[in-house]
Amino acid sequence: MKGAIGIDVGGTKIAFGAVTPDGRIVARRTIATQPDDPFESGFGRIKHETEQLLVDVGWQADEVSGIGIGCPGPVDTARGLILSVYTLPGWSNREFAGPLSAHFNNMPVRLENDANAALLGEAFAGAAKGKKSAVMLTLGTGVGGAVLLDGKIYHGAGGAHPEIGHVSVLPDGPECYCGTRGCYEIIAAGPAISDAGAEIGLAGSEAVFAAAAAEGNAKAAAIIDGVSAATEVAVWSILHTYLPELMLFGGGIVDDHWPLFEAAAQKSLAAAVLARDEDVTIARATLGNDAGMVGAASLILQNGS
Amino acid sequence: MKGAIGIDVGGTKIAFGAVTPDGRIVARRTIATQPDDPFESGFGRIKHETEQLLVDVGWQADEVSGIGIGCPGPVDTARGLILSVYTLPGWSNREFAGPLSAHFNNMPVRLENDANAALLGEAFAGAAKGKKSAVMLTLGTGVGGAVLLDGKIYHGAGGAHPEIGHVSVLPDGPECYCGTRGCYEIIAAGPAISDAGAEIGLAGSEAVFAAAAAEGNAKAAAIIDGVSAATEVAVWSILHTYLPELMLFGGGIVDDHWPLFEAAAQKSLAAAVLARDEDVTIARATLGNDAGMVGAASLILQNGS
Repeated sequence: MKGAIGIDVGGTKIAFGAVTPDGRIVARRTIATQPDDPFESGFGRIKHETEQLLVDVGWQADEVSGIGIGCPGPVDTARGLILSVYTLPGWSNREFAGPLSAHFNNMPVRLENDANAALLGEAFAGAAKGKKSAVMLTLGTGVGGAVLLDGKIYHGAGGAHPEIGHVSVLPDGPECYCGTRGCYEIIAAGPAISDAGAEIGLAGSEAVFAAAAAEGNAKAAAIIDGVSAATEVAVWSILHTYLPELMLFGGGIVDDHWPLFEAAAQKSLAAAVLARDEDVTIARATLGNDAGMVGAASLILQNGS
Repeated sequence: MKGAIGIDVGGTKIAFGAVTPDGRIVARRTIATQPDDPFESGFGRIKHETEQLLVDVGWQADEVSGIGIGCPGPVDTARGLILSVYTLPGWSNREFAGPLSAHFNNMPVRLENDANAALLGEAFAGAAKGKKSAVMLTLGTGVGGAVLLDGKIYHGAGGAHPEIGHVSVLPDGPECYCGTRGCYEIIAAGPAISDAGAEIGLAGSEAVFAAAAAEGNAKAAAIIDGVSAATEVAVWSILHTYLPELMLFGGGIVDDHWPLFEAAAQKSLAAAVLARDEDVTIARATLGNDAGMVGAASLILQNGS
């Protein structure tokens, strides 16, 4: 077999990659998600781009081990359903894996939550390679969370994905759709920083980071201090629940502001009397935006969890 | 084999039980811990009481599968060391399992953290029987936490016990020895409630519960409301990290005030949009003070984790 296809379905774009058994991406394509289009249209475009990718890379369908797909929100890995009601409303509860497999001569198709796929990618060919346990937080338009235990993605009750990005960090903080106040996502995700910035006349999360860094803007600095404090608390609770070998951060906000997240996480680790520093590593994801695609392909290549 | 010996080492007393392969306690003994005595004295008393228990129950040493021991704080399960520096200072880093085994003709001796032992007991013969995943919080002089995944106790990085009782619930709350402010233990454990009560002229945690229940004492009610709110947040973060099939509560404070803990936990579960209610059960431990002893014995009887 020459490799597998990894598909990373995001809220704004869908990335396709032809991934070799050792985790290299040898061809790629990207299309817009168009989340408001009917499901049938999106499904048809995914089929079409996958076929084109195979043409690009020169692989015959029978030389491909299968297709792995990472997508936002909860998925039903057993039945191949996307369950997301927030980020991809039209795709919710639609059967996805089965029809795609049928179209490609019953090639194996596996579905995984995108945050899980990113961690699988890092474990397959990135910063989590060789680690037995890891927790990854991916900060972007939301905070994705994923847990690797004994080298496999951990699923909770009913096979569902635990939404670690929604751990409580500030019980009297802003209200989140998840049902509580002051979860990590509602303070540290891009839209949360933007919303806080809008209240002090700044447009976009990067403007808030910039104003805080330039000093002289105490309100912007307070927002970023809040992100830092929220990160300390999120890391604290992860250290005291999972105590993982590796605490991994990824996503656009982390890529642009890693020192802030690293300092907050290290501060929590150093303070945690009941967790031995030397057993836990804090690190940044190394595959960047490719982690989800590589991890999706690894669902097939590793016959992973 | 007629059974195993389960020993539950607590801060104030040590309980010994002869436990049958189906989890019944057929004989028991209890002695004071005397934590300030030298380790050698405590070790000698444990040997002696174990011998006496075998006489009581009429089991020969070669009819016993082994000895399981649950004890406070971190333990090194591989080397058979108690690592606790807070609750049993004199016992810290002392080799325990090896010498005890040597004394009893090299009978297997296994050590486990007491909170883990309690959950193993519930899984062996109590409320967690048949559950694949469970998180247990045991509220007493501290808040013990334990996690069962795939029927085995989960250990974190370096084989250490994650101290779930110290998840963050109120970042600006009281300071705890664990290194943070406002962890669950520093708000909801017995001494925490007592300390808060002392500040308003009440002696002991039960006096605070009684004054709050009698109404008319707004300050006492505020302390108990704080315990309730802290429980909601702790449950929230456990639902969003482990998403376990079973969320189990045990310990003296829970035994006396279960409706409060049940209501707080159910409130969090009902609010958690991203965790399906029907997949998660909230329950109270059923073995009471015997859970640790039965669980310790189950380390041997089940050849458990």
